[in-house]
Amino acid sequence: MAARQRLLIKGGKVVNDDLSVVADVYVEDGVVHQVGPNLNPEPSTGLVVLDATNKLVIPGGIDTHTHMEFPFMGSRSKDDFYTGTKAAIAGGTTMIIDFAIPQKGCSLTEAFDTWKSWADPKVCCDYSLHVAVTWWSNKVKQEMESLVQNKGVNSFKMFMAYKDIYMVNDEELYEAFSCCKELGAVAQVHAENGELIAQGAKKMLAMGITGPEGHELCRPEEVEAEATQRAITIANAVNCPLYVVHVMSKSSAKVISNARREGKVVYGEPIAASLGTDGTNYWNKDWAHAAAYVMGPPLRPDPSTPGFLMNLLANGDLSVTGTDNCTFDICQKALGKDDFTKIPNGVNGVEDRMSVIWEKGVHSGKMDENRFVAVTSTNAAKIFNLYPKKGRIAVGSDADIVIWDPKATRTISAKTHHQANNFNIFEGMVCHGVPVVTVSRGKVVYEGGVFNVTAGEGKYVSRPPFPPYVYKRVRQREQVN
Amino acid sequence: MAARQRLLIKGGKVVNDDLSVVADVYVEDGVVHQVGPNLNPEPSTGLVVLDATNKLVIPGGIDTHTHMEFPFMGSRSKDDFYTGTKAAIAGGTTMIIDFAIPQKGCSLTEAFDTWKSWADPKVCCDYSLHVAVTWWSNKVKQEMESLVQNKGVNSFKMFMAYKDIYMVNDEELYEAFSCCKELGAVAQVHAENGELIAQGAKKMLAMGITGPEGHELCRPEEVEAEATQRAITIANAVNCPLYVVHVMSKSSAKVISNARREGKVVYGEPIAASLGTDGTNYWNKDWAHAAAYVMGPPLRPDPSTPGFLMNLLANGDLSVTGTDNCTFDICQKALGKDDFTKIPNGVNGVEDRMSVIWEKGVHSGKMDENRFVAVTSTNAAKIFNLYPKKGRIAVGSDADIVIWDPKATRTISAKTHHQANNFNIFEGMVCHGVPVVTVSRGKVVYEGGVFNVTAGEGKYVSRPPFPPYVYKRVRQREQVN
Amino acid sequence: MAARQRLLIKGGKVVNDDLSVVADVYVEDGVVHQVGPNLNPEPSTGLVVLDATNKLVIPGGIDTHTHMEFPFMGSRSKDDFYTGTKAAIAGGTTMIIDFAIPQKGCSLTEAFDTWKSWADPKVCCDYSLHVAVTWWSNKVKQEMESLVQNKGVNSFKMFMAYKDIYMVNDEELYEAFSCCKELGAVAQVHAENGELIAQGAKKMLAMGITGPEGHELCRPEEVEAEATQRAITIANAVNCPLYVVHVMSKSSAKVISNARREGKVVYGEPIAASLGTDGTNYWNKDWAHAAAYVMGPPLRPDPSTPGFLMNLLANGDLSVTGTDNCTFDICQKALGKDDFTKIPNGVNGVEDRMSVIWEKGVHSGKMDENRFVAVTSTNAAKIFNLYPKKGRIAVGSDADIVIWDPKATRTISAKTHHQANNFNIFEGMVCHGVPVVTVSRGKVVYEGGVFNVTAGEGKYVSRPPFPPYVYKRVRQREQVN
Amino acid sequence: MAARQRLLIKGGKVVNDDLSVVADVYVEDGVVHQVGPNLNPEPSTGLVVLDATNKLVIPGGIDTHTHMEFPFMGSRSKDDFYTGTKAAIAGGTTMIIDFAIPQKGCSLTEAFDTWKSWADPKVCCDYSLHVAVTWWSNKVKQEMESLVQNKGVNSFKMFMAYKDIYMVNDEELYEAFSCCKELGAVAQVHAENGELIAQGAKKMLAMGITGPEGHELCRPEEVEAEATQRAITIANAVNCPLYVVHVMSKSSAKVISNARREGKVVYGEPIAASLGTDGTNYWNKDWAHAAAYVMGPPLRPDPSTPGFLMNLLANGDLSVTGTDNCTFDICQKALGKDDFTKIPNGVNGVEDRMSVIWEKGVHSGKMDENRFVAVTSTNAAKIFNLYPKKGRIAVGSDADIVIWDPKATRTISAKTHHQANNFNIFEGMVCHGVPVVTVSRGKVVYEGGVFNVTAGEGKYVSRPPFPPYVYKRVRQREQVN
Repeated sequence: MAARQRLLIKGGKVVNDDLSVVADVYVEDGVVHQVGPNLNPEPSTGLVVLDATNKLVIPGGIDTHTHMEFPFMGSRSKDDFYTGTKAAIAGGTTMIIDFAIPQKGCSLTEAFDTWKSWADPKVCCDYSLHVAVTWWSNKVKQEMESLVQNKGVNSFKMFMAYKDIYMVNDEELYEAFSCCKELGAVAQVHAENGELIAQGAKKMLAMGITGPEGHELCRPEEVEAEATQRAITIANAVNCPLYVVHVMSKSSAKVISNARREGKVVYGEPIAASLGTDGTNYWNKDWAHAAAYVMGPPLRPDPSTPGFLMNLLANGDLSVTGTDNCTFDICQKALGKDDFTKIPNGVNGVEDRMSVIWEKGVHSGKMDENRFVAVTSTNAAKIFNLYPKKGRIAVGSDADIVIWDPKATRTISAKTHHQANNFNIFEGMVCHGVPVVTVSRGKVVYEGGVFNVTAGEGKYVSRPPFPPYVYKRVRQREQVN
Repeated sequence: MAARQRLLIKGGKVVNDDLSVVADVYVEDGVVHQVGPNLNPEPSTGLVVLDATNKLVIPGGIDTHTHMEFPFMGSRSKDDFYTGTKAAIAGGTTMIIDFAIPQKGCSLTEAFDTWKSWADPKVCCDYSLHVAVTWWSNKVKQEMESLVQNKGVNSFKMFMAYKDIYMVNDEELYEAFSCCKELGAVAQVHAENGELIAQGAKKMLAMGITGPEGHELCRPEEVEAEATQRAITIANAVNCPLYVVHVMSKSSAKVISNARREGKVVYGEPIAASLGTDGTNYWNKDWAHAAAYVMGPPLRPDPSTPGFLMNLLANGDLSVTGTDNCTFDICQKALGKDDFTKIPNGVNGVEDRMSVIWEKGVHSGKMDENRFVAVTSTNAAKIFNLYPKKGRIAVGSDADIVIWDPKATRTISAKTHHQANNFNIFEGMVCHGVPVVTVSRGKVVYEGGVFNVTAGEGKYVSRPPFPPYVYKRVRQREQVN
Repeated sequence: MAARQRLLIKGGKVVNDDLSVVADVYVEDGVVHQVGPNLNPEPSTGLVVLDATNKLVIPGGIDTHTHMEFPFMGSRSKDDFYTGTKAAIAGGTTMIIDFAIPQKGCSLTEAFDTWKSWADPKVCCDYSLHVAVTWWSNKVKQEMESLVQNKGVNSFKMFMAYKDIYMVNDEELYEAFSCCKELGAVAQVHAENGELIAQGAKKMLAMGITGPEGHELCRPEEVEAEATQRAITIANAVNCPLYVVHVMSKSSAKVISNARREGKVVYGEPIAASLGTDGTNYWNKDWAHAAAYVMGPPLRPDPSTPGFLMNLLANGDLSVTGTDNCTFDICQKALGKDDFTKIPNGVNGVEDRMSVIWEKGVHSGKMDENRFVAVTSTNAAKIFNLYPKKGRIAVGSDADIVIWDPKATRTISAKTHHQANNFNIFEGMVCHGVPVVTVSRGKVVYEGGVFNVTAGEGKYVSRPPFPPYVYKRVRQREQVN
Repeated sequence: MAARQRLLIKGGKVVNDDLSVVADVYVEDGVVHQVGPNLNPEPSTGLVVLDATNKLVIPGGIDTHTHMEFPFMGSRSKDDFYTGTKAAIAGGTTMIIDFAIPQKGCSLTEAFDTWKSWADPKVCCDYSLHVAVTWWSNKVKQEMESLVQNKGVNSFKMFMAYKDIYMVNDEELYEAFSCCKELGAVAQVHAENGELIAQGAKKMLAMGITGPEGHELCRPEEVEAEATQRAITIANAVNCPLYVVHVMSKSSAKVISNARREGKVVYGEPIAASLGTDGTNYWNKDWAHAAAYVMGPPLRPDPSTPGFLMNLLANGDLSVTGTDNCTFDICQKALGKDDFTKIPNGVNGVEDRMSVIWEKGVHSGKMDENRFVAVTSTNAAKIFNLYPKKGRIAVGSDADIVIWDPKATRTISAKTHHQANNFNIFEGMVCHGVPVVTVSRGKVVYEGGVFNVTAGEGKYVSRPPFPPYVYKRVRQREQVN
């Protein structure tokens, strides 16, 4: 019989989204057993003890948006589920949610199975999978139902961009949203007007603009705001909760905030990139530099964007944070050397997210440590129905825990990061707030720069439908309206 | 040789959009020859003299939006070009702009010719024709060009609603807007999300809601606002000026106002109905009453809507006013007795517009008499390139003139109006501001309740492309951006 | 030795602001000792057991804003600390925060002592005291410091209205806010432009408008919005957190929401009255009815106000709820029979608040039960530094608990309420959501309509300065800006 | 008998605010006598002929806001009424409106007489005088009445800033606005919260910030927006039209735009400085450079401010443009070398305004030439009741005319400008749009860089009360509300 895994974190300030309190945390077999002052679990033998004095003890981060080893635009993203989750752990993130994305006409279930088969043997921390709906038919509907009931999927993403590839039209959106509502799933959208992007790209190329700046010029922020407005309107027509992935612009964030003021059930997810850097990089004279920032929707040239998004994240108008981690190295990016439409879209972030948000959010005084926990972990757990097993340090919760040193600083760099690509969009950023120890399901997987991970040790996490945080209001409205 | 037609309007206050001044107006052969104090044109024989003392002398109204004898929804609107223009004249309007609307796949030129053939023998005042673009092809593009160059058309309307009938998708919108821009035409949109209407209507009927209130419930104002936002975004992507017909809601008007603040070239046209009444009528217990208000987009139940729209019209955020006059009598409306989707859409207004706007706009103190002239006549003339022949009383202008008594009142009623249907959506409204005399091209066509009109006496008015009021900025932007 | 007070609440759904879970709650000596399934505390003798099956078990409400036995406008509010707290208990509220208000030139400490001497012998549940700053001097500053350090006061209210009585000018506001910031107190404002009210009232009376409608007409909502904007601007200039009491209008709520989007530390408190009824009542033909609604700032005639405020409360733009409970009976109101400026300002609500918010907020689908707990209890506890002793059901918390039946309904009426006045502004409102049992510090004080209270049993609750929920950001900004 | 002064401007495009048309303009004795094609006024002897082929013929600019030879902050602005109006003429401006500003407690009439005595012998073009109300008493009220009735003053400015010097409080504002409304005058405000400025300045100095950047830091844009909101609220309470001088920030412009949407009668005046440069200059390392930009309210560091204001000016949310021309040379500015609060406030612009607005507004495509005329001349004439004598080229108008070359460019520089100071805040700006000839009351006063002016040749222009453009709505509201 295996000995019990036992861990005691002593003397830290335990930070949940509602409260910070100095307390010890005692963990057995991957689950928090006690939180309180001066714990002395017996026997002391076999007990791993971590000293967290003067440090914060926070729920491990949940990255709501990654694309590991994603076959995309004629290439495949460099971080696979092994390097990607390892990098996550180094950054204080203990769970990722990736996307299984079928081609148009193909089976959602098969896509799910494929992605799971890639992930299971490799993941070093827990993970789950959103599934994309890229076309519509009765079969799609049935597969959605089956995924919800049998596979623990409670979120589906629809693309309003990537015309002819992933894009669905308004009728398909309406059907997909209706189906999500019925099944108790969270509808997600990539909100950009794909038609305008297609036309804009054609126009740019015709004008001879082939460089990375063309990527942003052909899809300015109103293209994102328009689609966001449209998605909200359609979702609201069927009383379906909506989750807008990668909020990149002030315009789009305003649309979301305004909808929330009107009582619409909508959540916005800015990402590390949009919170930590901006689209002026597309005009960098070094092509490789500029290309490295290419993602969709693009970062915005307005340099006040990150601060604006962070204010809304602090305030509650935006809810959670992901990264859209989808790394391509410079050689891969070079596919679009002469045509920006061929630059593989994607940036890093899975390792950087927590530190970037701490620096720009907490250190700057925009939010406090509790809100930090909310937007990096708790809210994601609530929205995707993982709470309070994930997203909180409390008796009964999974022991996904990070010891965080709010005073220490580190400098982000491609030279030292663990993400697989050879460029970091936050290069040189000095961040207060450093993850010192990362604990995944009670096991110390990272400490002082040293990993102790095993591929495949992470688990696929099922997410039951009808997350109460999202659906209580929705269901009540059904009854009274 | 025909004697010259000569007319002197004495002692009134001549009101243009920039200034009011007491002056006489002398007209020869349909054109204003002199404006000034104490005119004494010789010879006095053959001179028609009208006394306008204590009255206003204003440019005749231009109704930018009518549908006379329109074959629509299995019926045909009751006001034809004869009764419709006669009613217009009685209300102080001396020019209408109607819509030639081809079926999908059909020729725009033929539609234009058809509508013109209906109008020419019947019109009692000047008129012009917008043309609808209900589908897209190279042929459509060529026809647009030909209509602009040979037929005096400088505006095209695209429908974002009426799925499967008139609705065009984003790609078609993009093409149509691009073409308008190239030709120097004003792009117009009926802005509602047709997909949501189709789905909403299905849902309402499935829930057993078949009455007129279902008409509004299935297309709430966010359905209008969404499409407005989308149209503006697409038009802006091709630097095409946009004109949003029948602005019915606060939400949509806000979208337009915000776009204008950002420098977008967009014009909003509220109509008599949205300025003078509201959508609470759809809940009227008398089916015939409720059905009489059915039009698309619907009137809004929020009773503060008309005042809100009037404020924006006063302020300059909205620009011009039409009516969407498209009258159906109660028997025609009854086609939708058991299914609101079959109620022919349309309301009256061509006769009422000027008085309604005076009452709710000027008498209320929201705007002054000069702004009244701007929004009922001058701005339309500027946008559609008729200025200063239309829309102004000045030497050289067409003598389309109304003597307006701002102190007199009248009560709007189906019993006394000249519109062809047996219901008036403004029934019982007491209006200050009464047209006492209407002059069309120098001829007194209406005086003290008595008509002096001849069918076919009105003229088709060609409108040259590139209206400077609209296009100067657009062209300059082309050069500097 | 007194026997321990022991209580077990069985089988209910325990609702905190982050989560609902079916669990038993075990209480000893006024404090929660255990929360979990199937508790069996030994010994069973002396254990009071309450069955909460199919009911919710929620933290007792905290009413952030009451005026019990307040000497005001030549009268004194009818609810004293006994009847007022009894009524609170009947409505599911277990703590109130009242206001000690010195006259200009008088001692804050004396005011505090006076109010405390009124409350201590009478209160049936816990309470605390905000203190008003109605003038400025060095002595005021010293007294503020002393109140914070010795008396457990961490909030001070400044009036921008009540000219010549309580109103302070911008310079005094600036000083008071600076002092609050230094002391770690929450600055509160009654936000209305007192100068405009004074002038407006004069004008109304001069025009012969003496009835209750004059009360609203002389201080329309822009008078509230202006002061709110000004207070936020001044508070922000000194980096002082601001709490706007009784948010009554859409305009004012928008000002607060917009400020929050910009990162300002500001909280808005709508009240039962503004969430549950509206200002159309001032035009009621029955003078006594109309006068009963007179309070400052007034309720707003726009009937969409309550729904708008509730949406913002649901969304997080507004934070907490009070009542401004300050009851005067019809005889007292009659002081202003011929002059609305003499009608004592105040309405009921301390008993009604929880049910009104449940009905209009939760039953309507605008918010869920967890957000209900947040806005009626938890957020108040956080802002005023009482959390997690108050505002949460967790081990170690005060056992201020309500068993809430979400399915039951009751009809609010002056005939059945426990508030001292003979009129209820919510008369006839049918509310889902009924408090079945109220527990104060572990004692069942109300059950099935029967009270078990003792005057003076409630305790004055000290509130330490620098509430982390409010001040963490503020302090961090000090350091980095 | 003096020969008639006769002038013919041939072949230009005459640009009014509503229309551009190629036409000749014939002037006699300072007044426009004919506008039309191919004029041939007889006799040709004594006729001055100017060729305007390929050029624009526009109404001379009206600068609504200057401070010539203003005794201020221990110094006196360098441009006196001679050099100032000469510079104006060189820039295409043919009328200025300056401010007579009494000290607190002093006579308004005396101030008016003093300023007039300074101006009359020196002005080279027409001018008028606003009068400031810096305190309140019955005498002030009587003087306002007398100035309106006997001196041709129809506008009064109140300062909300400059505490202890010019600042009036809310009660005084209320009285002054009430009085303006009664007299038919336009109320003007310098909108900044003077209390916050005073406190902010103290704080900056205490922190050791003494340089020009402290000037902006102590009065950020919310200080301006707050006062703007307050002024609008107070003015609206008495139904008084309001004119906000020198709109410097996006925030303040938004407040004005929003108020206009609600139907409030309010006008915003951005100035050349806020439209053409920004507050980043305060951080220039050269103290003299930074200090040269010091004015109140300050320019804003947000570099998107000028474009934002220009959009609103184009759109109609802002109405007119001035300069606040109040020049101090570097030696004068040096009074504040060690304390930014002592730097005399003021910048140049009277010569630059027209070119700056053409470049940033017209050349950029934000507005067309007609809107340019509106915002530089016509709207000012309408608001201050000079229209159509000023602000329009039409029969009967004053011959204040500029021949404008829209294709030519010039570079603004202190080396070549005619303003009296040795610094130009637009130094190096290349402007399309150059005034080639300036005509004042029919006399060519500037041509091809050569002046033909005589000190004292300009006239004081009386402005009658109740400008119809402003007051028609106001008076109507009086009657119906």
